[in-house]
Amino acid sequence: MKILVMNSGSSSLKFQLFDMTTEGLLLKGCIERIGSETGIITLKRDGRDEVKWTREILHHSEAVRSMLKFLTHTEVGVLQDMNEIKAVGHRIVHGGEWFRSATLINPDVQHKIRQLYDLAPLHNPAHMVGIQAVLEHLPEVPQIAVCDTAFHQSIPQKAYLYPIPYSLYKKYGIRRYGFHGTSHEYVSKRAAQFIGKPIEHLKIITCHLGNGASCSAVEGGQSIDTSMGMTPLEGLMMGTRSGDIDAAIIPYLLSKEDLTMNEINSMLNKHSGLLGISGMSSDVREIQQAALEGEPRAVLALEMYEYRIRKYIGAYCAAMNGIDAVVFTGGVGENSAYLRQKICEQLTYLGLKLDVEKNMERTQGERLISTASSSVSILVIPTNEELLIAQKTFSVLMGDGGIT
Amino acid sequence: MKILVMNSGSSSLKFQLFDMTTEGLLLKGCIERIGSETGIITLKRDGRDEVKWTREILHHSEAVRSMLKFLTHTEVGVLQDMNEIKAVGHRIVHGGEWFRSATLINPDVQHKIRQLYDLAPLHNPAHMVGIQAVLEHLPEVPQIAVCDTAFHQSIPQKAYLYPIPYSLYKKYGIRRYGFHGTSHEYVSKRAAQFIGKPIEHLKIITCHLGNGASCSAVEGGQSIDTSMGMTPLEGLMMGTRSGDIDAAIIPYLLSKEDLTMNEINSMLNKHSGLLGISGMSSDVREIQQAALEGEPRAVLALEMYEYRIRKYIGAYCAAMNGIDAVVFTGGVGENSAYLRQKICEQLTYLGLKLDVEKNMERTQGERLISTASSSVSILVIPTNEELLIAQKTFSVLMGDGGIT
Repeated sequence: MKILVMNSGSSSLKFQLFDMTTEGLLLKGCIERIGSETGIITLKRDGRDEVKWTREILHHSEAVRSMLKFLTHTEVGVLQDMNEIKAVGHRIVHGGEWFRSATLINPDVQHKIRQLYDLAPLHNPAHMVGIQAVLEHLPEVPQIAVCDTAFHQSIPQKAYLYPIPYSLYKKYGIRRYGFHGTSHEYVSKRAAQFIGKPIEHLKIITCHLGNGASCSAVEGGQSIDTSMGMTPLEGLMMGTRSGDIDAAIIPYLLSKEDLTMNEINSMLNKHSGLLGISGMSSDVREIQQAALEGEPRAVLALEMYEYRIRKYIGAYCAAMNGIDAVVFTGGVGENSAYLRQKICEQLTYLGLKLDVEKNMERTQGERLISTASSSVSILVIPTNEELLIAQKTFSVLMGDGGIT
Repeated sequence: MKILVMNSGSSSLKFQLFDMTTEGLLLKGCIERIGSETGIITLKRDGRDEVKWTREILHHSEAVRSMLKFLTHTEVGVLQDMNEIKAVGHRIVHGGEWFRSATLINPDVQHKIRQLYDLAPLHNPAHMVGIQAVLEHLPEVPQIAVCDTAFHQSIPQKAYLYPIPYSLYKKYGIRRYGFHGTSHEYVSKRAAQFIGKPIEHLKIITCHLGNGASCSAVEGGQSIDTSMGMTPLEGLMMGTRSGDIDAAIIPYLLSKEDLTMNEINSMLNKHSGLLGISGMSSDVREIQQAALEGEPRAVLALEMYEYRIRKYIGAYCAAMNGIDAVVFTGGVGENSAYLRQKICEQLTYLGLKLDVEKNMERTQGERLISTASSSVSILVIPTNEELLIAQKTFSVLMGDGGIT
């Protein structure tokens, strides 16, 4: 059975097609610059070179039509007929308090995704456009919503509430939702399998370090805390986002600079983090290079980035009263041996012992990078949110009438 | 030698007179409602009942004059002559990056305290009024500034900078300053003496839990991180202050509620924290009572309060790669055996073993509340900021010309 996974953004559409009998990825692609005359379509089949086209793609409906056309294309495609697609799984950023698990999209679910526009103004509207476009072209195919927030719905109230007037939670839903849930869930499950222990007995801290970044405390397979909050601004220092700051900086800046609230918001989201400190880049690779060349602000940016991750790991050990494994994932987490070493070498009080050589090996794939005597397993687990979305989509199909 | 310690607020003046040969407190007092016709003067001498008067006190100059009058009063006073006061030590909230230690107040120092009005608009102007009033009545007496921020000036750049554009630090001094420094310094020093080890070899986490609250990581006697930030809003959940929140809550609220930035600032500082969640009180004693009676929001407020302290302790263990002692101080830290137990019983992964009975004893004074086998010392150390201010004032006098 073939399942299509879609991530519909405001001007882009990413997709992956899985064969669920093997869980193999058949094809993945991306349509960028939707709404322009020079839309870019990229396709990649396993073992083949990437293919690219440029063409006018004025809206998401056209993007979905192009996607389906290429999926069934005699040369580059992998499907004989688009009816082979048995379900579409959508990555949905914000599921609020409604979606604790993957859910079959019906009018009520669409209504709820719309009600969350306020909390995810950049993402949820774009997801709905994608859902509508699929409805138009594949009206009979079940669509399933898999929310970034769902995995974190197990976080207890003491950790998801903010210490502000309680009425603001009831009135506006101001609380910690957390994001990257699909990634934290995927890598924590894979970590438990990798170390061969039931996840129910494990305390795992997952560090998803990409351009956005978050940590989660996963106890017994459930998220009990996470660093992103009501929005993806809170928590770790990121590529361009500040993460945690003194909230009083906002009124202070408003009184000092001739800036609007929107401009300050944009500053905190787009011009802060690694970029704001280094003054040169939001990319850890470039900053590491500059740090090697002795650029003090690059050194400082990395020190801050590392220090803030380390403090979250410490905080989540305290949240769970212990730790069995720490997992690194995301572009930075999977690739920066330097940062992994810097983080782990100051956590020896927890019994973490990094195997410095294993950590440095340029292997891909899931791997243990702690020594045999480390009392905490340190793992690198490449994330695969799309596969988990496909798996969850498959499960919903099986539970919801057994469409095969 | 007698030293007077003053804490001059916008409408109050607190003072304590010490005899530095014994470090004994001779008298303490408070003048409240300065600026009104019904100012209240309270005096307390060791071993005697508190005495109270009401009288018109229109400004700080008059408050200082009244204070000096009572200090030399034949019945309630303790001085023959006000010339016995050899120095005045002032508690100054904000010393910015200028004051790393206690400093003799001269015109340049006054200028610097004024330049920090922006960062401490409620406190520094009131301190300056107090300094001026002393100058007027005791022009020959040296005055010494002891800043709440000074102890935290040892915090390294990676911990004091925020991940926002670096230019905002250079331009406006936006950084972590930290507060309660005199308390964190005092209790960490006392803790080292209590456990009989050189502070240079110790990693101590100090929890100052009062109406305001902050944690510090004290490594080798130096503050290397603290939870309050540019302002006292950041960090732990407090009586009425939120502590850490997602900064994006501010723009969200501005777009939702008909509130000004000032009103939101006031909400975060005065109507949040324990009060905001419990909906009934900012006082831990009252909330504990309500929680005992089963009030769910009181239970929740305590859970959040405890959880956030615990996570900071965990984070600071990671910051120092270990911990030798945790110290509780401040009204709540010294008196709430319940909260101390809740915090410590979830930190056993660090080797903390609370002696539950010792913790419950209604003793005052410095005490160890961990078991003999605990690998981390857990201590209750009543804070005494005034004594430390007196000691530092004394040291400056000795160093600055040896006035005795």
